[in-house]
Amino acid sequence: MNPTYDRTAGAADDRPLVLVDEHAHAWSPETARTRIREGLAGPTAGVAAGRTQANLIAVPADWAYDVLLFCTRNPQPCPVLDVTDAGSWTTVLAEGADLRTDLPRYRVWRDGELVDEPTDVRAYWREDLVSFLIGCSFTFEWALARAGVPIRHVEQGRNVPMYVTTRPCRPAGRLRGPLVVSMRPVPPEHLAAAVRETRRFPAVHGGPVHCGDPSVLGIGDLGRPDFGDPVEYSPDDIPVFWACGVTPQAAVAASRPPFAITHAPGRMFLTDALDEQYRVA
Amino acid sequence: MNPTYDRTAGAADDRPLVLVDEHAHAWSPETARTRIREGLAGPTAGVAAGRTQANLIAVPADWAYDVLLFCTRNPQPCPVLDVTDAGSWTTVLAEGADLRTDLPRYRVWRDGELVDEPTDVRAYWREDLVSFLIGCSFTFEWALARAGVPIRHVEQGRNVPMYVTTRPCRPAGRLRGPLVVSMRPVPPEHLAAAVRETRRFPAVHGGPVHCGDPSVLGIGDLGRPDFGDPVEYSPDDIPVFWACGVTPQAAVAASRPPFAITHAPGRMFLTDALDEQYRVA
Repeated sequence: MNPTYDRTAGAADDRPLVLVDEHAHAWSPETARTRIREGLAGPTAGVAAGRTQANLIAVPADWAYDVLLFCTRNPQPCPVLDVTDAGSWTTVLAEGADLRTDLPRYRVWRDGELVDEPTDVRAYWREDLVSFLIGCSFTFEWALARAGVPIRHVEQGRNVPMYVTTRPCRPAGRLRGPLVVSMRPVPPEHLAAAVRETRRFPAVHGGPVHCGDPSVLGIGDLGRPDFGDPVEYSPDDIPVFWACGVTPQAAVAASRPPFAITHAPGRMFLTDALDEQYRVA
Repeated sequence: MNPTYDRTAGAADDRPLVLVDEHAHAWSPETARTRIREGLAGPTAGVAAGRTQANLIAVPADWAYDVLLFCTRNPQPCPVLDVTDAGSWTTVLAEGADLRTDLPRYRVWRDGELVDEPTDVRAYWREDLVSFLIGCSFTFEWALARAGVPIRHVEQGRNVPMYVTTRPCRPAGRLRGPLVVSMRPVPPEHLAAAVRETRRFPAVHGGPVHCGDPSVLGIGDLGRPDFGDPVEYSPDDIPVFWACGVTPQAAVAASRPPFAITHAPGRMFLTDALDEQYRVA
């Protein structure tokens, strides 16, 4: 499930955006979307400071109620930031953006099987596709950084590691599947701040779902994430797990809708929204 | 829109529950539901301390996506706490409860017209009804009280006053309509606490949508609420407005789905959930 992208094919560059350009953290969301449209295809952690990043899942209208209900019943992994009307590729969250071209890389699914990972899905688009933009934990990393919490995967220029857990989501209609989590190693002295800061952002997954022993979530080896990259951490670091917006993709794989388009894990949509809009306290 | 209930008809008692029994604040949610099933039909503010109260809207499955999308696009007035499967009258939020009988009073709507306000909707129930339980600001009144903020309508044994505003909600499919708000007069020295405490509960409407001049929301006369009772307030009190879960009823009236069942304003469903589960900071 964790492919190695062919970095020689075409113009796509799958390096993390913060490695491509050391100023990526200071980009406007519009600049980020333009650079992505022009060929950047890598993970977006650390890009466009203070702007909300979003996961994408688009399904045929016939499946839209199941997806929306699944999100409603599982708000921690699937907090919905926007839902488009069928066929539309625009969103209230980003002026002038095109959801078919402005994400770094996509995943195209048929009957629950991953069939393509293009950087542009205009050729796959359908009139009946309803798109869901779902909160992403990259959003609260700025608050973590301000609170002095080190972000290991950004420090190391890697994608965040993500794991499929054995914890089931609450099913909805034809959709079921496991919770997916992202993991950040946190030094013990920063644990309280990490919990406090992220709880303030329920629209982008909120506080951790678990801290410590990964086996509680059915994760065997932190060094082998299901998506993203393994990160190096200090011996004292505590692995802290947050619900992840890749969860709908695990539901697609488990529930096999006839067609779906998602983002590729870690390669998010940059919205114009300010993270601060989603802070509740 | 604000009927006077016939207090002589049958066994129904439309007095606020806190006036019927001075111990109502200490009831368990199960006791509250039992007493309501047995005939209490009044407003539920101040009942079952620390337990989450919920608004109800039930629509035919054909309209469920529109309602869920409307709620998703308008999360402040319409925070969804649970959605049932079609035909079901049970909810994960209250063990053993029956959504057809356990609310004090209902409203039955045909083509957007209010046609009945019974205390039991078993005769109206349909196999295709999907029920939405939506957060209610009565939930955060306990946090306000703990922070020393006076709750005028509870002090005065009245229903909270609610107003239809001129502020439109974001439409969704066939549904559109105005924002409805509840109002609590707050002494100036308690305003900061009122904002701070309620922002911590986004799942039950969160912080105020407006404080001060009611005309900004298109409200002409605070003494004539569209639902609930007018409350008396001190000259210095500031009117503070929170988004209200009656908003879906205004959308039903404006959008005219063929059939809907809602709660009667202020007469809420008592869940087993603890308010603290919805506190985010």
